[in-house]
Amino acid sequence: MKRGAPIVGVYSPEGVVLAANETPESRLEDTTYYRKIFQFDEHIGAAIAGLSSDARVLIDQGRVYCQSNKLLYDEPADVDGLADTLSDRIQQYTQHGGVRPFGVSMLIAGVDSISGKLLTTDPSGSYKGYMARALGRNAEQANQLLEDKYVEGLSLDDAIKLAIEAVKHASSGDLEPDVIKVAVIPTETKVMKRLSSDVVAKYM
Amino acid sequence: MKRGAPIVGVYSPEGVVLAANETPESRLEDTTYYRKIFQFDEHIGAAIAGLSSDARVLIDQGRVYCQSNKLLYDEPADVDGLADTLSDRIQQYTQHGGVRPFGVSMLIAGVDSISGKLLTTDPSGSYKGYMARALGRNAEQANQLLEDKYVEGLSLDDAIKLAIEAVKHASSGDLEPDVIKVAVIPTETKVMKRLSSDVVAKYM
Amino acid sequence: MKRGAPIVGVYSPEGVVLAANETPESRLEDTTYYRKIFQFDEHIGAAIAGLSSDARVLIDQGRVYCQSNKLLYDEPADVDGLADTLSDRIQQYTQHGGVRPFGVSMLIAGVDSISGKLLTTDPSGSYKGYMARALGRNAEQANQLLEDKYVEGLSLDDAIKLAIEAVKHASSGDLEPDVIKVAVIPTETKVMKRLSSDVVAKYM
Amino acid sequence: MKRGAPIVGVYSPEGVVLAANETPESRLEDTTYYRKIFQFDEHIGAAIAGLSSDARVLIDQGRVYCQSNKLLYDEPADVDGLADTLSDRIQQYTQHGGVRPFGVSMLIAGVDSISGKLLTTDPSGSYKGYMARALGRNAEQANQLLEDKYVEGLSLDDAIKLAIEAVKHASSGDLEPDVIKVAVIPTETKVMKRLSSDVVAKYM
Amino acid sequence: MKRGAPIVGVYSPEGVVLAANETPESRLEDTTYYRKIFQFDEHIGAAIAGLSSDARVLIDQGRVYCQSNKLLYDEPADVDGLADTLSDRIQQYTQHGGVRPFGVSMLIAGVDSISGKLLTTDPSGSYKGYMARALGRNAEQANQLLEDKYVEGLSLDDAIKLAIEAVKHASSGDLEPDVIKVAVIPTETKVMKRLSSDVVAKYM
Amino acid sequence: MKRGAPIVGVYSPEGVVLAANETPESRLEDTTYYRKIFQFDEHIGAAIAGLSSDARVLIDQGRVYCQSNKLLYDEPADVDGLADTLSDRIQQYTQHGGVRPFGVSMLIAGVDSISGKLLTTDPSGSYKGYMARALGRNAEQANQLLEDKYVEGLSLDDAIKLAIEAVKHASSGDLEPDVIKVAVIPTETKVMKRLSSDVVAKYM
Amino acid sequence: MKRGAPIVGVYSPEGVVLAANETPESRLEDTTYYRKIFQFDEHIGAAIAGLSSDARVLIDQGRVYCQSNKLLYDEPADVDGLADTLSDRIQQYTQHGGVRPFGVSMLIAGVDSISGKLLTTDPSGSYKGYMARALGRNAEQANQLLEDKYVEGLSLDDAIKLAIEAVKHASSGDLEPDVIKVAVIPTETKVMKRLSSDVVAKYM
Repeated sequence: MKRGAPIVGVYSPEGVVLAANETPESRLEDTTYYRKIFQFDEHIGAAIAGLSSDARVLIDQGRVYCQSNKLLYDEPADVDGLADTLSDRIQQYTQHGGVRPFGVSMLIAGVDSISGKLLTTDPSGSYKGYMARALGRNAEQANQLLEDKYVEGLSLDDAIKLAIEAVKHASSGDLEPDVIKVAVIPTETKVMKRLSSDVVAKYM
Repeated sequence: MKRGAPIVGVYSPEGVVLAANETPESRLEDTTYYRKIFQFDEHIGAAIAGLSSDARVLIDQGRVYCQSNKLLYDEPADVDGLADTLSDRIQQYTQHGGVRPFGVSMLIAGVDSISGKLLTTDPSGSYKGYMARALGRNAEQANQLLEDKYVEGLSLDDAIKLAIEAVKHASSGDLEPDVIKVAVIPTETKVMKRLSSDVVAKYM
Repeated sequence: MKRGAPIVGVYSPEGVVLAANETPESRLEDTTYYRKIFQFDEHIGAAIAGLSSDARVLIDQGRVYCQSNKLLYDEPADVDGLADTLSDRIQQYTQHGGVRPFGVSMLIAGVDSISGKLLTTDPSGSYKGYMARALGRNAEQANQLLEDKYVEGLSLDDAIKLAIEAVKHASSGDLEPDVIKVAVIPTETKVMKRLSSDVVAKYM
Repeated sequence: MKRGAPIVGVYSPEGVVLAANETPESRLEDTTYYRKIFQFDEHIGAAIAGLSSDARVLIDQGRVYCQSNKLLYDEPADVDGLADTLSDRIQQYTQHGGVRPFGVSMLIAGVDSISGKLLTTDPSGSYKGYMARALGRNAEQANQLLEDKYVEGLSLDDAIKLAIEAVKHASSGDLEPDVIKVAVIPTETKVMKRLSSDVVAKYM
Repeated sequence: MKRGAPIVGVYSPEGVVLAANETPESRLEDTTYYRKIFQFDEHIGAAIAGLSSDARVLIDQGRVYCQSNKLLYDEPADVDGLADTLSDRIQQYTQHGGVRPFGVSMLIAGVDSISGKLLTTDPSGSYKGYMARALGRNAEQANQLLEDKYVEGLSLDDAIKLAIEAVKHASSGDLEPDVIKVAVIPTETKVMKRLSSDVVAKYM
Repeated sequence: MKRGAPIVGVYSPEGVVLAANETPESRLEDTTYYRKIFQFDEHIGAAIAGLSSDARVLIDQGRVYCQSNKLLYDEPADVDGLADTLSDRIQQYTQHGGVRPFGVSMLIAGVDSISGKLLTTDPSGSYKGYMARALGRNAEQANQLLEDKYVEGLSLDDAIKLAIEAVKHASSGDLEPDVIKVAVIPTETKVMKRLSSDVVAKYM
Repeated sequence: MKRGAPIVGVYSPEGVVLAANETPESRLEDTTYYRKIFQFDEHIGAAIAGLSSDARVLIDQGRVYCQSNKLLYDEPADVDGLADTLSDRIQQYTQHGGVRPFGVSMLIAGVDSISGKLLTTDPSGSYKGYMARALGRNAEQANQLLEDKYVEGLSLDDAIKLAIEAVKHASSGDLEPDVIKVAVIPTETKVMKRLSSDVVAKYM
């Protein structure tokens, strides 16, 4: 799952960051529909690498999971529980006949009652946790940069800067601020917020 | 999905335009049945590129969706919701066994309660939004022309002219006005209207 | 679907004509059972090219459709509705597993409450309308002749002559009048009528 | 379906004849069980070419059809209706998965309320009518002989002679009368009758 | 189905005989379980050639058929009816997917209310009748011998001798009486009886 | 089914013996779980050669069979009935689609109300009876030894000795008494008893 | 199943030990989610080698089994029963169509009412017991070391040391204490306890 524009997630004690290169293939594309970053619930988001049509199926299921959880237990879904549920479905599509596996990997970022978390899912149905992680095209270079530069306990601001830097590192050529999309779930508010192009520009 | 006669969609703040080269293979063909442009509902239309028989299945489902929406919520369907519903079905046909994927791409144009929209679906089940977009034979040339000439905020008249120009650009040889079919959903009326050959001729 | 003896349909404002070369393979064949032209309902007929066994399945379904329509709506079926229903089934057999597509194309001719119509179905499940059309062996030559000679607004008599000429053109060798079968649905009566060999001979 | 011993059917206005070369592979074979000619109902018989086990399935179904018809409508089954019913089943086995087509062709002979009839079915599920027809090994030669010698309006006696001659023509070497089996459904009695070896010998 | 030790059946007006070479592969084999000759009912037996595990399935079904017949009609099953029922099942396993054909042929011998009968089934699902027949290894030689030596109207004693001779002819090397198993259903008693080794020795 | 450590069964009028080479692959293997000899019921045991996971499925089914038999008929299961039931299931897995055959052969030994019995099952679904039989690796050599040395009417002690000798003959290298496992079902007690290593050593 | 980091289990009369090399691929991986050692119940744990997504399915099922057992019988599950249940499911996935086998092997360690136990499962569905066993990458070397150094009756401390040594032996390069994870189920407490990095360091 290395195709598709690069996506990056960075964990900081102050919040979790998702960043993506959302450069559309054509200047006429309506970027409202060209999204790599989605929201499962107020406190959980995801960036995707791979087939957007397959991703949509999982995102729809994840949203239902989050809402059911709220209704049943009267509290927001755990990030782990969401990743586990989605990965169970992904695993079934690898082991049972008559279907093909999901062609998508995800970075799931969220802040639940326990802590901020950054998890990845893959087409085999496993999920892992990371301090910082890149997926998609040129992910190896971006992950190398993250390993070199990530400092434990970094501030949310530094996390945003690092995420943007990694996205740029994995992208070829110069990037305008408006194609780098960033979403942040601060530990304090536990509410996912998309940064405007102006704010992204400042971090660059 | 580059086979089939070229189809073009152009968005303008004053309305959305669909245009298609409907040159039949034989002069004896009854053009009533040779359509590339269909209507889902009063306010939403589509142009198709690919297998017309597969398209019919999706158009039938889309019409049912629009009517159900009206009955259930007493308001016209959103263009996004329609594209999402159709793409969900298209995606399922790529992932589950015992069926083959739909061999058709669509330009869905409409004006809903929010705004005018131009969306594309493809056989993988993704959908995207565009300011202007061509599909079908020679789509690359037509899209190049659209990228070169599309001006944001263009008038509906200019949008119609641009759509016709792009269709001609993607078609080989001279085209008579009566083989270029154009449908418009003006933002004001929100009602799809097919232009007569005479009107098309004037725009040429 | 170019195998099988040639079949031809011609539309005239005064009625729709179906003609077929029904030369049996052996002089001992009972021509009652060797038919290329069938009747769906009083006002709709069809000529077939391809596997007669597959055609029978569709003709049976079409007849049920026409009768249901009469019972439900107390009026004769539209020609379009019939072609649409049959083509939906044909399309399903191309997209779903466990079955093979129908190996037959049809010329459906009829006069309904709106007008006389000549439609074609094919194994992919699309249908089209024509002023005049040939299917089956040597269809290309026959269609060329139709394109060359078809005059809009031609009389029913001229339509019959043209249909017979096209059938002869697509057949090899001389043809006796009794192997050319012709059926006519005049716009006035809306009742399909098979011409006798004598009448066919006169038109030749 | 040209394997298997030759079978021949001949229609005469005075009745329909079925003849078959029932030479067993071994002189020790009990010819009671080695039959090419079967009876569906009092007034309808059939000769088979191909897999006898597949034929049995169709013959069983045909017998049930004839009896149901008698019970439901209080009159004997039409020969056409029987051929149509069996061919529908045969066609389904060619188009649907999980089964293989029937490996058998039949000559169905009968006299119903309308007339005497001689029909053939084949593994594709089509059926045709003939004045005279041979199936099975060397059918081409036998059919050539039938085309050369069949005279319209021939008497039942001549039909029997012609059928026997055709069977002999398609068989290699001399044939004893007791291996040529002949069944006749006279138009007058409408009751299938098997000829004894003595009677067959006289016709030879 | 020519593998497996040779089995032979011989019909005489005084009874039907089954004989088999039951030489086990090892002298330590318990011959109680190494059987080629089975009993369906008091008056019907069978010898098998091929997979003994597949044969068991058919023998079980045949026994149920015989008992049901007795219960339902208060009379012993016809030999033909039994062969027909088993062959119907065998045929289905050749035509429908998801199963493999039965790998076994049978000689069914019995005396029913009509007469003594000797029938064979094969993996295609056909059955035939014979005066005398060999199946299994070297069946061709054994059948040649049967054709040469079988005399119509032979006595039961001669039938037993012929059956034993044919089994020996198809077997390689000398055979001890105790490996040739013989079962007889005399026309008078209609009860299958297995001959002891001593009796078999006398016939040799 | 010649892979897997050798197993041997020997029948004596005084009881039936099962012996197996249970040399584990590693000296650290817990031999409690490394068993080739299982018990179906008090009076019936089995030794297996092949996939132990497949064997477990059959052993579980056999145990249920034995218990049901006791409950239903208030008497212990026949050894034949057990082998028949298991072999029916094994046969079905060879003939029906969507499953693979069982990869295991068994020696079933038991003493039921009739006598002591030694039966073998194989992956095709047949079962046979033997006085003495070896399965598994080098079974040919072991069977040769059994054929050479088996004396009818041998005592239980001699049967045990012969079984152990055959296991050693089929195994490479010297064997310690504690890797040769022996189970005995004496005709008198009808209760399966496993011999201790000390007892086995004495027989060696 | 030799891929994946090495895992080792060692049985001592004083308890059972599981050890694993949990070196993550990246220093940024959140080791909370990178686990090779799981807990089925208070008294049973497992280490896995292979696809973690497949393992999750089995671990979920095992946990349900343990809890059901407690509810139904009011006592903790046997280690054997758990291995048997999981292996039954694993076996079914090898024999039935439409699924692929589980790509995971497990070391199951536990102390139940009977004793401490160390069992292994594999993708074929068999399970075995061991005194000490390694699975995963370089398992052969680790097993050789275990065979050489394992002393029956060793203390729990020695078991822990041996397990750690085997993990190190199968791993390339030096290992920091914090990547070697160790879990112990002491026979006395019957409660699985994970050792902290400090404690592991002391054992090294």
